[in-house]
This record gives sequence, C-alpha cells and structure tokens, in this order.
Amino acid sequence: MTEEMPTHTAADCSRAEARRTQILDAAENCVREYGFHRASISKISKASGMGAGHIYHYFANKEAIIAAIVAREVERLLTLTAEVQAAENMLEALALRTESGVLLNLDPQAAGLKLEIVAEASRNPAIAAIVRAADGRRSAGLEETLKALRQAHGLADDAATISTIAEVIAAMFEGLMVRAIRNPAANRQLIARRFQALIRAIVLG
Amino acid sequence: MTEEMPTHTAADCSRAEARRTQILDAAENCVREYGFHRASISKISKASGMGAGHIYHYFANKEAIIAAIVAREVERLLTLTAEVQAAENMLEALALRTESGVLLNLDPQAAGLKLEIVAEASRNPAIAAIVRAADGRRSAGLEETLKALRQAHGLADDAATISTIAEVIAAMFEGLMVRAIRNPAANRQLIARRFQALIRAIVLG
Repeated sequence: MTEEMPTHTAADCSRAEARRTQILDAAENCVREYGFHRASISKISKASGMGAGHIYHYFANKEAIIAAIVAREVERLLTLTAEVQAAENMLEALALRTESGVLLNLDPQAAGLKLEIVAEASRNPAIAAIVRAADGRRSAGLEETLKALRQAHGLADDAATISTIAEVIAAMFEGLMVRAIRNPAANRQLIARRFQALIRAIVLG
Repeated sequence: MTEEMPTHTAADCSRAEARRTQILDAAENCVREYGFHRASISKISKASGMGAGHIYHYFANKEAIIAAIVAREVERLLTLTAEVQAAENMLEALALRTESGVLLNLDPQAAGLKLEIVAEASRNPAIAAIVRAADGRRSAGLEETLKALRQAHGLADDAATISTIAEVIAAMFEGLMVRAIRNPAANRQLIARRFQALIRAIVLG
C-alpha cells in the first residue's frame, strides 16, 4: 500500500521559492533597519505583505529565517569561487572578481545587515552555530580554489598554508564591511585597485 | 572680581577617573552581553555597582558612554601609531606591533563589543557620528605614520596613496574581528605571521 503523496507541480515549487524570497528580502530589511531583536515576525509579516501564519509555513522561527539569509550569501560566494576554479587563468579570474567583491562589501546597506548578524552571533549560541556552519562551507569552497591555484603555480598547498591564506583573504574582504560603516567616504575605486594588486601577492605568497 | 572655583585636588581627579573607568568597563560588558539596546543605564548601574544618578554625574546618556568606550580604543591605537612613528626602524616597529594587533583583534570578546557598536552605527545616526569621528582621528594617526614611513623609503606619499593604504590596513585588521566570531577555531599564530609578511608589502607597495 502506498500513501497518497501531495502532488507538487513545477509551478507550485517556483511559487514557493518566490514566497521564500519575498520573506527573506523583507526580513533582511527589517534586521538592517531595526536590528536582530526588534525585527520581529510581526514586523517581517508587515514588511513582506504576508500573514505571520504564512511565514511560519515556510520558516519555523526567526533563526530559520536568519539561516536562510546567511545561506543565500554563502551560495553567492560559492558560485564565485567555483567560477574562479573553472577559469582558464584562475589568477586573472580572481583579480577580476576582486573588484566587484570590494565594491559590494563596501556597500553600507549590505554591510549593516551582515554585521548585525555577526554581532548577534557573538552572544547568541543559536545564531553563532548558523554563522559558523555557513562560514565553514564558504571557507571550504575558497580553500579548494586556493589549492588548485597554488598547485597550478607549483606552490606549497598543505592544509595549514591554504587555510591561513583563506583566513587572511576572508579578513580583508570582511573588514571592508566594517570600513563601509566607519568611513563611508573612502574612495572605493582606489581601494579596489589596491586589493587587486594585493590579492595576487597573498595567493602566491 | 573672580568667581570662586571649586577646588579639585589631584586625588579628586584620579578618583573621578577611576569611577569613569568603572562605568566604562561595566558598560562594555553589558553591551557585549545584551547588545546596545538592552544595555540600559539600569543594567550598567547594576554591573558597575554604582547608582544610576552617580552614572549620570559622569555621562549625560548612553551615547556619551559609547563615545567614551570608542575614544578609549582610539587612544590605544593612536599610542601604537605614535610609537611606530617614533621608532628608529619604523617598518620593524610596525611588524612587531602587527602580531599583538592580530591577536587582540582575534579575541572574540573584544570583537563582539566593537562589532555591536559598528552594527548599531549602521542604523543609528548618533552612534554613526561617534564612530566616524573616532575613525577619522584613528585614521589621521595611521596616515601620518604611513607618510613618514614611505618618505623614509623614498616612496610616493600623496594623499590618495596614503589614505588608500590606510584603508586597506584598517580593513585587514578590522576584518579579524569578524573572523573572530565566524571562525574562532582559526590558527591565530599562523594568521599573525602571514599578516606580518603582508604588512611590509602593503606599506611599501
């Protein structure tokens, strides 16, 4: 005997995906505007134009929403590192993406949201677990690309070297988020150019 | 005719200084533990063991406490850059302080506090003004030192070059605070060593 399974068509799935996106976009705006604690499900409901019950249909709680926000960002970064790894000239591809990466991280809106989540992670174990798991996935992608890149240049590719270079690169880019808030008047193009020169030295160092 | 001035002895002043420090230390712990919004004057009063009225005698409001916390950190960093500038071998002095700077910024407790203040600055104009003014002072100190360093090495020291290098260095070090939360398991000594090698390349680049 087989149980009746609910039938999900492709249209159902893409509708569900659109709803999830709608909730996550609204939640991002709320966390950015009000901070983690005051970004309640009720505020997210109002901002998304969806009932709270409808939101709970997609996400168990606020932590699940934050996890999905963090996962979206990780997917974007994993796509970037995969693109670099697939490129014929990996170093060139990395330098190319460095510029857009710098400009994106220097955007105060995006930076404010991510820093709020990191700050919350510093005292909230549930958010810390989400942030650390996501960072581990992102880091693994970058390390794989760095390993391929250094092997192609005949350089040391032991685990300690690779993970240290990955940490330094992460610090450089994530620090831009802090700079975006502390000094929004900085010249972004000059910083991007300096990062491009530097990234080669770090990867091949 | 001269007004009667209240007489402040040296002992009065150092007692006042000790009280201020007591309040700031307690406030740092509260902001770290509860976040900016829930770190109320009443919580700071309890944590410092001082009455709320007594706290208001030293600080007009929570913003003034945050400004003083941020100013303490700026003073520390200005002392560092002044030490580098006064050293016979500035590059050596900078590399030496790079190690302790990396280890300090990778401390999750200190990082959590600073990131909370930056995150609050991303949506609170009063805190943004405090953070940006402090960053301007810190940055001016670093730029002065970088200028002296590059002049000593016969390198370009125009304003755009100096401020861009200062921004890159700030991003690198401030990014460590984000790393401290996202990946507290990273090998700090290896990161410090890599930073030391890198800082020379950046300053002379």
